[in-house]
Amino acid sequence: MSAKTACVIIIGNEILTGRTQDVNLGHIGKQMLEAGIKLAHARVIPDIPEDIVRNVQECSKAYTYVFTTGGIGPTHDDITAENVAKAFGVPLLLNPEARARLLRHYGSEDQLTEPRLRMAMIPQGAKLIDNPVSTAPGFNIGNVYVMAGVPRIMQAMLDGIVPTLAGGPPIRTRSIGCFLPESQIAPGLTKVAEEFSDLEIGSYPYFRPGGFGLSLVVRGTDTKRLDQAVAALGALIESLGGSPVLGIDETAVPEPSSQAQSQK
Amino acid sequence: MSAKTACVIIIGNEILTGRTQDVNLGHIGKQMLEAGIKLAHARVIPDIPEDIVRNVQECSKAYTYVFTTGGIGPTHDDITAENVAKAFGVPLLLNPEARARLLRHYGSEDQLTEPRLRMAMIPQGAKLIDNPVSTAPGFNIGNVYVMAGVPRIMQAMLDGIVPTLAGGPPIRTRSIGCFLPESQIAPGLTKVAEEFSDLEIGSYPYFRPGGFGLSLVVRGTDTKRLDQAVAALGALIESLGGSPVLGIDETAVPEPSSQAQSQK
Repeated sequence: MSAKTACVIIIGNEILTGRTQDVNLGHIGKQMLEAGIKLAHARVIPDIPEDIVRNVQECSKAYTYVFTTGGIGPTHDDITAENVAKAFGVPLLLNPEARARLLRHYGSEDQLTEPRLRMAMIPQGAKLIDNPVSTAPGFNIGNVYVMAGVPRIMQAMLDGIVPTLAGGPPIRTRSIGCFLPESQIAPGLTKVAEEFSDLEIGSYPYFRPGGFGLSLVVRGTDTKRLDQAVAALGALIESLGGSPVLGIDETAVPEPSSQAQSQK
Repeated sequence: MSAKTACVIIIGNEILTGRTQDVNLGHIGKQMLEAGIKLAHARVIPDIPEDIVRNVQECSKAYTYVFTTGGIGPTHDDITAENVAKAFGVPLLLNPEARARLLRHYGSEDQLTEPRLRMAMIPQGAKLIDNPVSTAPGFNIGNVYVMAGVPRIMQAMLDGIVPTLAGGPPIRTRSIGCFLPESQIAPGLTKVAEEFSDLEIGSYPYFRPGGFGLSLVVRGTDTKRLDQAVAALGALIESLGGSPVLGIDETAVPEPSSQAQSQK
């Protein structure tokens, strides 16, 4: 596993009230695996100035990279940029490049209304993060990357960020399923986990109509070791009278469609 | 708004790697609105002992109630109970009542294997949380409520917990939609938000095939004030040439089906 770590801060009341289902964390998690960076922590915080300042400061100290999502639009509840600036002790300034991008996007000076110009207010010294979807940029200051909350925009921003990060070898995943009860496989599973302590092995039971299933998931950077671990798990399942189902992780979530998803 | 606050700690590598889509946070968020408790913070942490101890201690100090989900099953990666015990400085003991429940569930002493008895190991002094789905209980110690990660089980546990919490008047939600750009409505929206500073007003743009939409969401305990705020927002939308769509929050997520969801 890489020594580089990441932390996600999801900013927005709508996630904490259950109005909006966050899908950004899972997307960032998958991208970090690919980049060989360990997503080690995530927080969901409300649109409250002190909460943003404090959590950005805490997480910025504790992790290699911090990604925030949400709160960078034109309305009164979009307060991320000003509070990230506060967290770094720098002023929030009208960024000429961000303003130029918005001018190109909206077409004329008189379209650059005050709410739209709000989206060009960037902490001093920050670098812009491209927004190929709707122009208004995110920004990077220190080790903090400030992105939009709308999944389609966040994903496009992240695509531009990931290649610039220093990561490690990709963290690969193998999975193997069966229909044994978790408590039956537990002792053997502990032994396999000890034998492959260089890998991360998780056991995930799930309900489905008519019964239950179990997904065993192995993660690590060494594909040979991964294959060995999966073989050991397959042998364990068979030794208990089960039928291993290779490569299927029944309950894994597909990459979410970014359409019709709202999140700030 | 109530002075009582809540914090959720989601425990599990599978959420941070994007394997499993958490749906518990949103469910707890909705239940807290109903209970008049402000869900003020949430964290997602990996299956690492020190992470569990530190985060439980930090959040237990900072919020009225802390809910954890995940990591209370029978396998090697289920390490929540022992580390919550550590966080409170108490030993983890075989709980006689939890053992009796498992005995009734599994039918005979010889069925109480070591992995199953692991699920009866509870921090000293903790109260059991009923699990009407699959018997193995959660527990409550101090202001921390330790629940399963599988949504169907977590929801059943929470149903038993919520009536025991001291909350406030229910926090109600109203929403109104339109198809105006967020930057056009922003100045008027700021004024309405200032006029109704006792309420929480959020603005949530979303993409949909062929265009965009905007949901305005108002939250508070005083239904009369909520109605007044929605009327003010409706008038604002009309003054800008838009058509307000009352009571519709297009992108709000429905209560998730708890079937076929895996999460520890």
